[in-house]
Amino acid sequence: MNIVLLSGGSGKRLWPLSNDIRSKQFIKIFKTEDGTYESMVQRVYRQIKGVDPDATVTIATSKTQVSSIHNQLGENVGISVEPYRRDTFPAIALATAYLVDVMKVSPEESVVVCPVDPYVNDDYFSAVKDLSKEADKGEANLVLMGIEPTYPSEKYGYIIPVSADATSKVKEFKEKPTKEVAEEYIKEGALWNGGVFAYKLKYVLSKAHELIDFDDYYDLFSKYETLNKISFDYAVVEKENNIKVMRFNGEWKDLGTWNTLTEAMEENVIGKGVMNETCSDVHILNEMDVPILAMGLHDVVISASPDGILVSDKEQSSYIKPFVDKFDEHIMFAEKSWGSYKVMDVENESMTIKVTLNPGHKMNYHSHKNRNEVWVVLSGCGSTIVDGYTQNIKAGDVITMNAGCRHTVIAESELKLVEVQLGKEITADDKEKFDIEY
Amino acid sequence: MNIVLLSGGSGKRLWPLSNDIRSKQFIKIFKTEDGTYESMVQRVYRQIKGVDPDATVTIATSKTQVSSIHNQLGENVGISVEPYRRDTFPAIALATAYLVDVMKVSPEESVVVCPVDPYVNDDYFSAVKDLSKEADKGEANLVLMGIEPTYPSEKYGYIIPVSADATSKVKEFKEKPTKEVAEEYIKEGALWNGGVFAYKLKYVLSKAHELIDFDDYYDLFSKYETLNKISFDYAVVEKENNIKVMRFNGEWKDLGTWNTLTEAMEENVIGKGVMNETCSDVHILNEMDVPILAMGLHDVVISASPDGILVSDKEQSSYIKPFVDKFDEHIMFAEKSWGSYKVMDVENESMTIKVTLNPGHKMNYHSHKNRNEVWVVLSGCGSTIVDGYTQNIKAGDVITMNAGCRHTVIAESELKLVEVQLGKEITADDKEKFDIEY
Repeated sequence: MNIVLLSGGSGKRLWPLSNDIRSKQFIKIFKTEDGTYESMVQRVYRQIKGVDPDATVTIATSKTQVSSIHNQLGENVGISVEPYRRDTFPAIALATAYLVDVMKVSPEESVVVCPVDPYVNDDYFSAVKDLSKEADKGEANLVLMGIEPTYPSEKYGYIIPVSADATSKVKEFKEKPTKEVAEEYIKEGALWNGGVFAYKLKYVLSKAHELIDFDDYYDLFSKYETLNKISFDYAVVEKENNIKVMRFNGEWKDLGTWNTLTEAMEENVIGKGVMNETCSDVHILNEMDVPILAMGLHDVVISASPDGILVSDKEQSSYIKPFVDKFDEHIMFAEKSWGSYKVMDVENESMTIKVTLNPGHKMNYHSHKNRNEVWVVLSGCGSTIVDGYTQNIKAGDVITMNAGCRHTVIAESELKLVEVQLGKEITADDKEKFDIEY
Repeated sequence: MNIVLLSGGSGKRLWPLSNDIRSKQFIKIFKTEDGTYESMVQRVYRQIKGVDPDATVTIATSKTQVSSIHNQLGENVGISVEPYRRDTFPAIALATAYLVDVMKVSPEESVVVCPVDPYVNDDYFSAVKDLSKEADKGEANLVLMGIEPTYPSEKYGYIIPVSADATSKVKEFKEKPTKEVAEEYIKEGALWNGGVFAYKLKYVLSKAHELIDFDDYYDLFSKYETLNKISFDYAVVEKENNIKVMRFNGEWKDLGTWNTLTEAMEENVIGKGVMNETCSDVHILNEMDVPILAMGLHDVVISASPDGILVSDKEQSSYIKPFVDKFDEHIMFAEKSWGSYKVMDVENESMTIKVTLNPGHKMNYHSHKNRNEVWVVLSGCGSTIVDGYTQNIKAGDVITMNAGCRHTVIAESELKLVEVQLGKEITADDKEKFDIEY
């Protein structure tokens, strides 16, 4: 099975655990059998490999997520990087071309496209596999998953099938309705549209060539900036008559808000947190090193990260976005392909950061125009290269780098260091990358 | 007027803003006219000086509070340090001897003793002054303040006066009663005992000499460890027949819990905090650099500091102590006589701290047996002395100190630095102090 996971944009609906560079799919909130926690993307990837160990998984995403994906799924996962945001049709066309031209998958094969963030059980991915097999038959150009509704939701689009059979032709698509209209749809046998669909690669490639002038993946990638924004629904689905839908009646949750997310949590407390016996339906998600104490609260979610602290009635938590948008966008924590960093202190002319490098990883070799930096090694071992000069490092070593000086650090074991940045203008943009000189 | 403020022990009832080394009286929560915030001790000190600019104020406290007191009230305030905890009679005897032998106040003069943490208006200190004048007359050996009760409280002791006059002889003292009994007392004209009383210095000195064999303040201080624990009530008040009480009917609040403390706050938010329009009666006290967002909450107090985060129904907030007692006692923030420090990161074999020195202040000259340290100067200027060698420092400078090496830093302007401690056993006790060698 070929599968493209759409790893959507960053968002603040799960602030303070999600921010402009960390999307909700990377937050580790699901307890696994060995007691550690995994993120949505890790859970989905594990589930796919469980159902089909040979599945070719490609993640379609923006470049800001590449580090987090490699950090969480390793270096072997396929990634189709959208160099610019151009809506779903260009993104799906690019991922399709990536499968054919980079992964060398035959255009005759099928692929299933699905969002990376549904909270589902393994039966969902069995249904995804069935979708792929149905598309393989070539009887329909598109095969959609239709989720049997459990309540008249206003949040989803609806698919009206021709029949109540397990697989049926699609009669009609309906936009997100009001609750009353949703009730009518459900009486007619409508299904939720969960955004999951399968097609033969050659089908979307031909649609792409109809709309875009390009040779292959590499050409499409290079002209991506010039493409028009257009949704896959508008460009393909609404114009296609030969569409089938397959029913799915297992568990399916969309974890877009704190309210729905906490429903999927097995435990009430992740991280350091204590609540007294007068609390009910309280969830604590704490990424800080210090404890949270909750007393006498009901239906409340508390979440703390280096970015901030949310305390919200669960119902109200759907409305956090406009408030969070007003906060400073200073990113206090980030996962990178080489490890992670955490901002510990910000002053007018300095910033202090804790850097953790994973074993065998290194930073880019880079320099800054407007700031000096000092590294103090806390633990681990490895080496630094500063202006071409290599030096072994261990706990307690201090490396000072003036503005303009090229530098990197390479971790042998896990390496932790404090980085003090000093200068009048400290920005993330002030960074020039170089090839390493030895 | 001579006044002794009893600055009581540390406590966790206002965690995370109070901890084992920061007592509630040092938390800056009261907005002043110029928009800055002052603590209970600063507010009370300012109020006393407002009513009587020439007042001799002495703070009776333990040595753990000396740094905070100097930091908040300056170097000129008198402090009678109890070298050990020996209950109120030894503490008051020591402060009394301090006034006579150190401050050279005549034993014929009066002193008023009062707690440092009532939340009151200026009229309270006018009443305190009246108490002092009444004691000056020498008609009674003790003159107490009796606060007119506003409700039948179970939290206070009661004083039954002989008459309802502004000043009356005391008929009887009553322990903290039940609510029903309190109602009876109030019908009889009882007053709350707020722990405020005045006496001639010579009176308590003679009582002290009856119970303790000592020459003067210095002698009493030196043998303080050997004294028995005994309360002032038991040693003096209960045995004294000649006691008067003066009525006070102004505002008087005891801010011992989050519930009562937030009632005294003029604003709902101190520090970075936002609440949406569905919140009511919510208070946010945030000492962190990142924002708190509160939504859909009612009657809740949220407080965050480097020590932790409390989210509590206000009523429930009275019961935090047993929960907080279970948390690690690692102090993450402290005010010192020379400035303050904040723990930024703790690892197995390292600790990273941000140190802020006030202009003109310095650390003790000291060394550590089991840890190396690195200082990175963030801002300000001053000098370091390391093993007798003095060096000027400015932003970006790095100072490395091996275990055993003697060191201090002296701030010319406000000086901020990152201190990285490295070693297998990092403890606050691992510190040897020295006189500075030049």
